[in-house]
Amino acid sequence: MKTHLENLNWRYATKRFDENKKISAEDLSALKEAVRLSASSYGLQPYQVLVIEDEETKEKLRAAANNQPQLTEASQVFVFASYAEVKEEYIETYMKNVAETRGIELSDLQQYSEAIKGASLTLPKEKQAVWTAKQTYIALGFLLNAAATLKIDACPMEGFNAAEFDKILGLEEKGLATSVIATVGYRSEEDVTQNFKKVRKSSDNLFINI
Amino acid sequence: MKTHLENLNWRYATKRFDENKKISAEDLSALKEAVRLSASSYGLQPYQVLVIEDEETKEKLRAAANNQPQLTEASQVFVFASYAEVKEEYIETYMKNVAETRGIELSDLQQYSEAIKGASLTLPKEKQAVWTAKQTYIALGFLLNAAATLKIDACPMEGFNAAEFDKILGLEEKGLATSVIATVGYRSEEDVTQNFKKVRKSSDNLFINI
Repeated sequence: MKTHLENLNWRYATKRFDENKKISAEDLSALKEAVRLSASSYGLQPYQVLVIEDEETKEKLRAAANNQPQLTEASQVFVFASYAEVKEEYIETYMKNVAETRGIELSDLQQYSEAIKGASLTLPKEKQAVWTAKQTYIALGFLLNAAATLKIDACPMEGFNAAEFDKILGLEEKGLATSVIATVGYRSEEDVTQNFKKVRKSSDNLFINI
Repeated sequence: MKTHLENLNWRYATKRFDENKKISAEDLSALKEAVRLSASSYGLQPYQVLVIEDEETKEKLRAAANNQPQLTEASQVFVFASYAEVKEEYIETYMKNVAETRGIELSDLQQYSEAIKGASLTLPKEKQAVWTAKQTYIALGFLLNAAATLKIDACPMEGFNAAEFDKILGLEEKGLATSVIATVGYRSEEDVTQNFKKVRKSSDNLFINI
């Protein structure tokens, strides 16, 4: 655990990546596996994750993200794209996955299926989008932890034009909307922010113990 | 990294905790430290985290969470409570923390401060609440990763009456609103769900590689 906390202290929101350093195929697989194992409400994973290394696409995304250099200098860009609304078919597909994975009958999942539908499909569309987007932030947390474990640098980012991202990536026709992104790779020696002391609330200011 | 992924595979949303097993003070400190180190937009940490072990409070929360047994059987309940709206004073307090931690002048942070204010204070109140709530989901991800590292069980939960939680915990007068919670402790042998195979989207269904 000491190492885990040291890794979390080591990480920081990297502003400049070394564009010559690429994440190995093995490490990239591990990062993706951590994201795949992320918790989500009901286990539904109401999102898809785009992993972008195509230079031309990264250039376009950079232009839609206030020209922030991370978008092109980083080895990969993870784009977390959540369901713009929850559709009954997503829940049906999930139920089939549960039944197949656990070797049980779909009919035995009727109650569980109805519970998810009751809680999600009845929400106003806007709240559905907020709910699915929130789940991507858990997955982002899983990515950041895995990256720190591998001593891979990352920068979680919200400063981008989501509508333009959706257009560049063709997400709308897939029923998806860009929620949050993270660039991953290796810090450049020139990134001065790596020397900045980490700023966090003190325990006394963050926690209320009851 | 193999161990990290094994830990993520080991974890599951624990439904029944062994109420006789309590998290040690040392491990609880480590969980809290991981949460404290969580990333958040601008580093603002627009939330507080309640760590509840008082039995009477846990009983009240259980009643406001569809009587789910985790609330009382778990060793602690982590309640992530986000700012109901972003106030200028939160940003000022944060800027003072940045200046003190890094030994720089507050005036040197003027531009950074204005950027945060411009991006957050101008949002409609509802969107401010969504934005702050999303940040707690990253912290939840950090908690789940730390717990798995320590082989501590956890159950992230959204199935509760947030308004009742706010009332029980006196959050409204603090400008906070319950966003998401997680119960932590040790699984009961009687929790049959620990034997269920983990269900996740396949890599092919989750990722789009560009």
